[in-house]
Parts: sequence; C-alpha cells; structure tokens
Amino acid sequence: MNNTMNNQVKTVLDQVRSSTPLVHNITNNVTINDCANALLAIGGSPIMGDEAQDVAEITRICDALVINIGTLCKTTIDAMFAAGKPATELGHPIVLDPVGAGASTMRTTTSARILEELGVSVVRGNMSEIKALAGGSTTTRGVDVCEDDVVTKDSLAEAAAFAKTFAQSAGVVVAITGAIDIIADAHRAVALFNGSPMQGRITGAGCMLSSITGAFVAVGDDPYYATVAAVASMGLAGEQAESRMGELDGNGSYRTYLLDALFNLTGDVLAQGIRFEEL
Amino acid sequence: MNNTMNNQVKTVLDQVRSSTPLVHNITNNVTINDCANALLAIGGSPIMGDEAQDVAEITRICDALVINIGTLCKTTIDAMFAAGKPATELGHPIVLDPVGAGASTMRTTTSARILEELGVSVVRGNMSEIKALAGGSTTTRGVDVCEDDVVTKDSLAEAAAFAKTFAQSAGVVVAITGAIDIIADAHRAVALFNGSPMQGRITGAGCMLSSITGAFVAVGDDPYYATVAAVASMGLAGEQAESRMGELDGNGSYRTYLLDALFNLTGDVLAQGIRFEEL
Amino acid sequence: MNNTMNNQVKTVLDQVRSSTPLVHNITNNVTINDCANALLAIGGSPIMGDEAQDVAEITRICDALVINIGTLCKTTIDAMFAAGKPATELGHPIVLDPVGAGASTMRTTTSARILEELGVSVVRGNMSEIKALAGGSTTTRGVDVCEDDVVTKDSLAEAAAFAKTFAQSAGVVVAITGAIDIIADAHRAVALFNGSPMQGRITGAGCMLSSITGAFVAVGDDPYYATVAAVASMGLAGEQAESRMGELDGNGSYRTYLLDALFNLTGDVLAQGIRFEEL
Repeated sequence: MNNTMNNQVKTVLDQVRSSTPLVHNITNNVTINDCANALLAIGGSPIMGDEAQDVAEITRICDALVINIGTLCKTTIDAMFAAGKPATELGHPIVLDPVGAGASTMRTTTSARILEELGVSVVRGNMSEIKALAGGSTTTRGVDVCEDDVVTKDSLAEAAAFAKTFAQSAGVVVAITGAIDIIADAHRAVALFNGSPMQGRITGAGCMLSSITGAFVAVGDDPYYATVAAVASMGLAGEQAESRMGELDGNGSYRTYLLDALFNLTGDVLAQGIRFEEL
Repeated sequence: MNNTMNNQVKTVLDQVRSSTPLVHNITNNVTINDCANALLAIGGSPIMGDEAQDVAEITRICDALVINIGTLCKTTIDAMFAAGKPATELGHPIVLDPVGAGASTMRTTTSARILEELGVSVVRGNMSEIKALAGGSTTTRGVDVCEDDVVTKDSLAEAAAFAKTFAQSAGVVVAITGAIDIIADAHRAVALFNGSPMQGRITGAGCMLSSITGAFVAVGDDPYYATVAAVASMGLAGEQAESRMGELDGNGSYRTYLLDALFNLTGDVLAQGIRFEEL
Repeated sequence: MNNTMNNQVKTVLDQVRSSTPLVHNITNNVTINDCANALLAIGGSPIMGDEAQDVAEITRICDALVINIGTLCKTTIDAMFAAGKPATELGHPIVLDPVGAGASTMRTTTSARILEELGVSVVRGNMSEIKALAGGSTTTRGVDVCEDDVVTKDSLAEAAAFAKTFAQSAGVVVAITGAIDIIADAHRAVALFNGSPMQGRITGAGCMLSSITGAFVAVGDDPYYATVAAVASMGLAGEQAESRMGELDGNGSYRTYLLDALFNLTGDVLAQGIRFEEL
C-alpha cells in the first residue's frame, strides 16, 4: 500500500469520517432521500433546500454544494444559481450532476450555464451526458447511457483523452461513470474497475455518488484524488452489496445493502479494494 | 397452461423484460422513488420529469407516459398536459392514476380533464376514486377506499358491470384495485384474487402498480391483457413478499421484499400464480 | 404498571391502532415517503398534499395536520396557511416541525408566523431549533443540533425550565428531542431516555416522529401525554431497531428496522419500555 493512489483515497475517506462535512444538495425529487442517507452513511451531514430565497443562507454554513438536475424545474434553476453564486464566492467546492443532459434542451442548456457561470469543481455523469456537455452528442436514452458511449477496455485511452480535454476546457475534475469509470483533470486520468451491474438496477446510484463526492471534495486537498476516492467508495460498496444478495433478494434489498456498505466502509478497506489503472 | 389469460400475461411480462421500455412518469413526491425502483425491478427504465418546459422533449423519447395526481400542484398540472398532448399525438399509451379523486375538487376535475383531453389508455385506482371519476360518488376517505365501495365475492358481477360501463364511456381499460381487483375494457372483465393485506400498510403499492402498468402497455399488443399482467404481477409479488416476512418484520421490510419479488418475477411464475375469474 | 405515565402512553397508542386517524402532512421532499410509511406503521393513515388550492379540502377530511418546513419553498408556505387556517377553525391538532429554524431567515420567520397565526398544538424540534423559535439563539449547524445545546443529565432541570417557559408563551406542548428528550407543557415536563445513536445516522427520524405525533394527538385526550407517547414510541422503536443490527448492517437496514419496530410496537410493550423522569 505504498502507492500514492491507495494512500490518497484512504486519507480522504478518513478525513470525511473525522470531520463530518456539511453538504448542501439541490437535487431531484426521485433520489433525494437516498442522497441524504448516502451522505450520512459515508460520514457527512446533508442539508437539502431548493427555494431561491432560502438557499444563499443555507449554503453559506455548508462546506460544499451539490447540484443535480434530475428533475429540473424553473424554480429550482433559480435556486441553483442563488446558491451557486455565494458558494463560488466563498470557494466552496461545487459538484454538478447533469442528469439527462442531451435528453432535453432545458437540461443541456442549464448544465452548460452552470458550468459557465459557477465555480464548478467536479462534474459527474455518464458518458452520454458528458458528451452532451462537451457538445459532441445530442442523443441520450433518457437518463441511461447510449450503447455507443459505453467505455470498454479497448476504448480506455480514447475515453481518457476525451475526459482530459473536457476537464481542461471546463476547468473541472470530471467523473464519467459506468461499468468502467474514468476520472480526469486536465493532466491526469484513471480508470476504476470497481462496481456492480446491480447499481444500474436501482435508481439513484449516480445521484448518491454525486452527493457523497460533495463530502469528499469538501475535505480533500486535491479534488482529483477526492473524486477518485468517492467513485471508488461507491464502486466498492456496490460490489460488497452485491456479494451480500441472497436468492430472494432483488433491487429493493440491494439498495439497502448499498447504503449499509457505504456506512461500514473504512479507509483501509477502500485502499485495499480499489482497482484502478492510471492512464 | 393453455388458457389464453395465462399465456397472455406471461408473454407481456417476458416482453417487458426483453425490451426495457422507457417510461415517463409525472407522479407524486411521496412515492416517486418507489415508482422508479418498481419500474427497474420489472425490467423497464424510468424517467421522471414534471417541468412543463421540459416534458414534451422527455416524453417523445419514451414509450409510455404515467400520470399520477397524488401530490397535484398547479405547475405539475401544466406538465401533465404539456407531456400528455405530444404523447397522445405520438400514440404513446398513457396511464392515469387519479389518487384522491373525490377527496378534493382539484383532484376530481383535473382527473376528468385528463380523461377528456388526453388519449388515456388505462385508468388505475381504487373503487372510490373510479366512482368519483364516473360521477357516482363524491366521498372518499382521503386516499383510501370507502368501506361501502369495497369489492367482495358477492359484488363481482355488479363491479364488473360498473367497470365495463366506465371503460366504454371513457374509452379506456380500467383497473379497480383492492383486495379483489377488477380489470375491464368495454367488452371484457376479469377479477384477480392475488395480493396481500400488507400492500395497504405501505405507501405506494398503487402508485408502483400504475408505473409498471406503463411498461406493460408500452410493449403489449392488447392493453387489456397488458393491464391484467401488470396488476397480477404486483399482486403475486405482494403475496411472495408477505410469505417472506419474519417475526420482527413490518412494513419497512415488506416494502423491500415487494421490490425484490417484482425483480425476480418471471413470466412462467406469473402464468402459474395468477388467480382470476373472467366475468 | 400503575404509574399514570405508563398507562397513558399505552392508552394513546392503543387508540391510534384502533381508530386509524387520518393525518394531513405538508412536509419536505427528503423524508416524505418515510413519514407516510411511519404513519402507516404506527396505525395511522397519511395523506400528503401541498398545493394551496387543494389543501383546505384535504385537511377538512383529516384528523390532524403536520407542518414540516424541511424543504420550505414559497408555494408550500402558502399551502401551510391555506391548510392551517381551516384546521385551526375545525379544532384539528396541528404539529409543527421547524426543521432548520435558526439556519435561515426564511425558516425562522416562517416558523414564528405559523406559531403566531395558527392553532399549533405541538412543536417538535431539536434544542437549537426550539431556541431559535424562542429568540434565544441564531446559530445552528444546518439541521443538526449545536453542541452547546445538547441536553445532558446535568442540564435536565435547566432544559425543563426552558421548555416549560417556551410551552407557556407559545401555548403549545413542546418536544425537544435528542439523545435525551424533553417534553413539556406550561405546567409539566418529563425527560425520556429511550432512543439510539443510529437515529442520527439516518435522515428522517425527527420528521417521522413529527408525523406520527400527528396521529397520537389526533386521538389522545391530553396532548401532553399524546406527545410523550409518540416520542417514547419512536425512541423505543429506535432501540429495538438497533438491537436487530448485524455486522454488515448500516443505516440502510436501520431505517428499515425502525419502520418494522414501529409497525410491531404494542401499547403494552411501550408501557413497559418507556424510561422517563418527571421533572
């Protein structure tokens, strides 16, 4: 365990557990409860609030802001900017989850505006959503990734190059998640191989990941390693949850086991369990 | 298993599993997460979205639309019509769940407007809600069925006649669910006897059923059999979930087991487990 | 079991189970599903609805109203008053959960307005929130209690005096919950020692408590004992849920077990399990 990556992810997770960062979430109504429980599981403290008049005060007392556009509406867009501007000024890390970008004009343009006007630190989405933000694709299958966009072992180099370019132009760390996850900033990229196909059979695996990423970047010195730690934590918890499934279990139990696994994950287990390839 | 009904329900469930229909849900904030997970459990793919400016684009890429008025508000009513009109034009099946119709003027009149102005394929509610839509009753016990409206073995013929008349006048398949479920179109009616009293001790059993009905009618050739398959799937999963309960379990575990049972349900098991009487 | 307190809490819980009170909740989007399932678990029937045009009719058919400001927005504030006024006129008990009061101006002033303009029976919050309502504090850690405000065995008398003073001036029963809970009206106060630290590791333990308090005060003759019964029920269920946790369990399973324990709680077990000290 002398590897930098292994040490870094352990350190960040341990910091989350010891400092309980307060994370403001403006998220969707589908998975808002899961996002709050995932933050509590990983050792953070969630606060939700999406009223424009209220959010500036709320976000000021927080350590990070997570913006998720999964059930975007006009009033929550106002709240995203009302919270995002003070968060930017205060130097709070902002995580953007562009759910369904590419599937509708409102989602694509709102994501683009957030990236342009706010000090976003991390963007977390599937490849189709990130391509939509990069201007390279306008087709998505709703909130799912398009088949053509799936990252495989053969396309790692290509995906890493795309991710680095996007990260550089947007000035962010990008996490492109799927069966294989790619995390990149302008100069570094890594592929993560943790995870379970069951994560695609529940709603909210991506949203929960975006929310806990808020806790990791709130405490981590380097948003690149903090994001890797968050993605690896969710992937490893996803594997542990799958291994716990019995014959009668399905996605109901899986969702419970996933939160349980996040709850019990330690920095040491994360450092030992992360499976990665630097690109 | 030579019976038409048994074969039909197996076929439709198998089709859902093999084609993963994308279902747009404009639903309530109480059970929206359960609706998404139920759709994933049964083999569909959910997308939620209730912003009027956004939903027309969203619904176009989907295979069916589910409208649930459980926490109706003015902005979501706009979204229901903004999505419902293109869905109607595109011939997408629309499922209406008139939660609490009869309990308030806004719920009753909105349900009636949806039935009149949109191309609704299926209406799924309890007897009190359907009677409110039929103009025959204005009393409900909130979101629960009134005692006078409960369908019993002795009132099957009467319930079937009412259901057929409603189905014919509204031009829909109607699913009146409860301890005994009645599904009817203008010419056919069936009573289903699957289910568990525990389904009334969780929130969302009806909402989840309406959402998965969207997946079944998206793939089925005949919306009557597709609706029967959906209702029987939820009823059979409800029984399986109940049989799994231990001494310490309550409605928390039951809800998890219900999703698990939907997740593991196969067409063969459904065909063998459905208990029905054609009326 | 000749003690008044033990008998009272048993009686009220038994009454909830036998009369299934209908409780209208205007609550937050994070825990709305948990609130509905907790009400069903304890033997009540939930109805949610937060559209100003709709709620007056809804609340009229109910037995109590619960107002929770966890994700306050301008439209739901309108709904709170649109429901709260007829509920007040009809003499329905109203429970207020001032989530995050003190953390933002909108939350603090809205809570104060609700207390002033509506006939609130019970206020349930943590000590920081209640202090914010009492005008004695303007600092909170988001939705969590501030460390300085935690009630300990050494500060019971002081906390009881504060609670009685607040209860008298606001004309309510107040439940200040935490590791030790204080319930008071103008003349009586009690400390409850039931509960589990795991309740702080899920979202919604407080919100669920506020919602089930609606069911207890709907049926109880004395809102003081009804509130004690509700708080003790949640505390005892919290202990039972913790005792059921296995090595792999975390907050996902805990949340399920908590609902299960509420579901299975009887008046006799509550009367035997309540641990209290009258102050």
